[in-house]
Amino acid sequence: MGDKVEFTSRVNDLYKFSAIQGHLGWDQETMMPAKGAKARGDILAWLAAQRHSKLTDSEFGELITRLEGQESDDYFTANVREMRRKYDEAVKLPVEFVSEFTKARSQALIAWQEARKDNDFAKFSPHLQKMVDLTRKRIEYLGCEYTPYDVLLDEYEIGMTVNDYDPLFAGLKERLVPLLNKIMASDVVIPKLPAEMSFPVDAQEQFCQKVSHAMGFDFGAGRMDRSTHPFCAGIWPGDTRFTTRFDEKDPFSCLYAVMHESGHGLYEQGLPADYNYSPVGMAVSLGVHESQSRFWENQIGRTASFWKVAMPWFKEQFPDCPDWDSETLDLIANEVKPDFIRVEADEITYNLHIMVRYEIEKMIFNDGLKVEDIPSTWNTMMEEWFGIIVPDDSMGCLQDIHWSMGAFGYFPTYTLGNLYAAQLLQTMASQLGDIDQIISSGDWSPMLDWMRTNVHDKGSVMSPAELIEAATGSAPSPEPFLRYVEEKYSKLYKL
Amino acid sequence: MGDKVEFTSRVNDLYKFSAIQGHLGWDQETMMPAKGAKARGDILAWLAAQRHSKLTDSEFGELITRLEGQESDDYFTANVREMRRKYDEAVKLPVEFVSEFTKARSQALIAWQEARKDNDFAKFSPHLQKMVDLTRKRIEYLGCEYTPYDVLLDEYEIGMTVNDYDPLFAGLKERLVPLLNKIMASDVVIPKLPAEMSFPVDAQEQFCQKVSHAMGFDFGAGRMDRSTHPFCAGIWPGDTRFTTRFDEKDPFSCLYAVMHESGHGLYEQGLPADYNYSPVGMAVSLGVHESQSRFWENQIGRTASFWKVAMPWFKEQFPDCPDWDSETLDLIANEVKPDFIRVEADEITYNLHIMVRYEIEKMIFNDGLKVEDIPSTWNTMMEEWFGIIVPDDSMGCLQDIHWSMGAFGYFPTYTLGNLYAAQLLQTMASQLGDIDQIISSGDWSPMLDWMRTNVHDKGSVMSPAELIEAATGSAPSPEPFLRYVEEKYSKLYKL
Repeated sequence: MGDKVEFTSRVNDLYKFSAIQGHLGWDQETMMPAKGAKARGDILAWLAAQRHSKLTDSEFGELITRLEGQESDDYFTANVREMRRKYDEAVKLPVEFVSEFTKARSQALIAWQEARKDNDFAKFSPHLQKMVDLTRKRIEYLGCEYTPYDVLLDEYEIGMTVNDYDPLFAGLKERLVPLLNKIMASDVVIPKLPAEMSFPVDAQEQFCQKVSHAMGFDFGAGRMDRSTHPFCAGIWPGDTRFTTRFDEKDPFSCLYAVMHESGHGLYEQGLPADYNYSPVGMAVSLGVHESQSRFWENQIGRTASFWKVAMPWFKEQFPDCPDWDSETLDLIANEVKPDFIRVEADEITYNLHIMVRYEIEKMIFNDGLKVEDIPSTWNTMMEEWFGIIVPDDSMGCLQDIHWSMGAFGYFPTYTLGNLYAAQLLQTMASQLGDIDQIISSGDWSPMLDWMRTNVHDKGSVMSPAELIEAATGSAPSPEPFLRYVEEKYSKLYKL
Repeated sequence: MGDKVEFTSRVNDLYKFSAIQGHLGWDQETMMPAKGAKARGDILAWLAAQRHSKLTDSEFGELITRLEGQESDDYFTANVREMRRKYDEAVKLPVEFVSEFTKARSQALIAWQEARKDNDFAKFSPHLQKMVDLTRKRIEYLGCEYTPYDVLLDEYEIGMTVNDYDPLFAGLKERLVPLLNKIMASDVVIPKLPAEMSFPVDAQEQFCQKVSHAMGFDFGAGRMDRSTHPFCAGIWPGDTRFTTRFDEKDPFSCLYAVMHESGHGLYEQGLPADYNYSPVGMAVSLGVHESQSRFWENQIGRTASFWKVAMPWFKEQFPDCPDWDSETLDLIANEVKPDFIRVEADEITYNLHIMVRYEIEKMIFNDGLKVEDIPSTWNTMMEEWFGIIVPDDSMGCLQDIHWSMGAFGYFPTYTLGNLYAAQLLQTMASQLGDIDQIISSGDWSPMLDWMRTNVHDKGSVMSPAELIEAATGSAPSPEPFLRYVEEKYSKLYKL
């Protein structure tokens, strides 16, 4: 077998292990019975160990070294480069550590679900402590060039550090907080859902599937299920699964979760099929992934033009709902209100939610914040920045799944997603013309096609920053996002 | 690492691969979107190849040889014996063949589902041909001592051959056919479901879950889902999943499928946990597995005593159903009628259904019956033995999933299950006292406990025949089954 063929075969093996892990992860949160948790943890840990031992095989290391000296096309070169990064990282982590981490993560996930349901941080606390301890150990193994937290940030969006995020967040805060204050002072009244009204789950499901289908999500190659925390898993070719949750009192919560996860799903369904089971065939970064979900959720879904199209579908499912017009629904969908839950936050406060998590993670890993002090730290920040008192930890530091999965350093990529989305929209509009007109037409395929060509098709052949620059002509910048929110909300709230 | 530790670790690895295959198989039939089929086939084939290459590792073979000379406890010895059998078989099968077989099976399964839905044998025919060809090749690789079909029969129930089954089936036929004729001539009238009545799926689901729960199935360690063909998968510790299907016109079809699959599920949930991921921790054979499902489905579920307990649950879900008493429901549940569908057949005709499949399989592999001639051969037999004309292949040779999975030689184990179940019931009654009284009490745990002690707990430490003999004091025999049906149906039909 030639080096290139062997490399591809070994890489495919590794990514097949990952795909199975992804599938079992999906199942764990949607289907698995509670008593299956122990075995699930064991199996996931075993798979991680199998994958790890294949990844760290020294023959594979030598193969990568040989291929680094050879001429190849861009895609192959990108695969070699990415596998070098993964190989170097993996050889630093002992196989027992990887297995322990995976096992602890499975248990922490279950504990988090229970703690959140019972609103009992103490149930989660020892598991969170374990995840923090293991993550500190991980940082030690990987080696720390700048600050410990930087090691984690770099893992989720290559090249990003505290030195990049600190000024970025400061800059956002500088313009978002005054905007928020102006909105809070506005006398525009947001209509409320009638308190006595209920929106049956089945009808919500029908409505949301219709919207997702209109976005272009292929249900012949995917599913929509339920889980505590909505997520999307692009498991394997032809099989992309996302989840949502239902609140009978609020159909918008589910709708925007579905648009969000469908946005992720469209990216997965659009990745270059010729490079399945290899890095270059995967999404380029969490930030870019989030740009796709936020694009559909906010920039398409939270507009009057969207509601012109979706209103008949909504009324079909909820014939008793008040006779709102699309402008009213647009207002409801864009209500700005400092509140507790990140995934239901408006576009203005959302990035402040991310900052809370970013600051706390930074404190944990760079300044030794104790796990037991997380709830009070969280609640203090929420009071200071949002002016609201967190009533219990389920509405506070227990709301997100990420820490139970040991995904520290992940949150800031959500903000990057918001920035990328705005920058992509700006360029798309300059090329396709009036976006509102496209949305109103009900045929959203030109926008999906544009994303397919400029983002999805590219897989991971470039870095995230290169991809954004290639698509938009400029390096990533917060400016388009800030202009977008300032313009949109000034109009909505008559500022 | 000592030999024993290494052996256990290698065996566990192999069984973890199998568990993942089992899980993906479950998902394929319950959850997978249609376009995921190609990748699913690839992944299952890849897993089979991974497992096969680990199983056939010559170092593993040497390890087995070394352990065969050592003293060990019964359970360890059983594991070594069983792995020797699997190793010897596997080294005869080239890895490419295993991979091709698995891939073809995935595709055949999809094709079968479509062909059955569309009632179009031609859609399935090329895939079935492929499965037959690959199975012939498999027989060649494994080596044929007696007839080719014997190689397949032995795989599903060790030690059973055409020479065992031919007289067994002849003996059953000799006493079942006269019994059937007498029943057909009886003037007992079986009440019919009112044609206009409909039984909503959700209510059926509730009712069936209640019954399954009363049997002792632990829904905290399992699930019930839907699939074209009901099945049960004991995937991994704490996670046993079965499926059913719903017919709004006939609630009994679903009920008895659920009792059947729950019986399988109880066996899986009762296997010895200390021997997870090794042969001795698995069900001992398909025949014994089927004895557990048939016990609950027929010997418990199809009795007036069962309906005394279940009737209030039934009426709770279907308040508009006729005011039947438990004797009437018992009659409905035990209607004997030569009909088309095996899984819905009564206890008398069931084994004749098996004989049709047995004879056709024997013809395919021992006498060169052509795939294209299967439908006509099937239909001719149904006419001769059952006196009914098969209206289309969905009601005929397309009804079962087995051949699409290449599971030739599997069907006869169903009949063994019926025989074992009757033999176990006879002994259970001699030890626990009046079984009808236990069923009527609504507390069915003494029966489950008896099965736990005498069957489930044993795993695969003995051969199927040894296990039946240890549990009942006699070698497996058709006599208890024949006596059971003759007595039961003489009473029901006043013969």
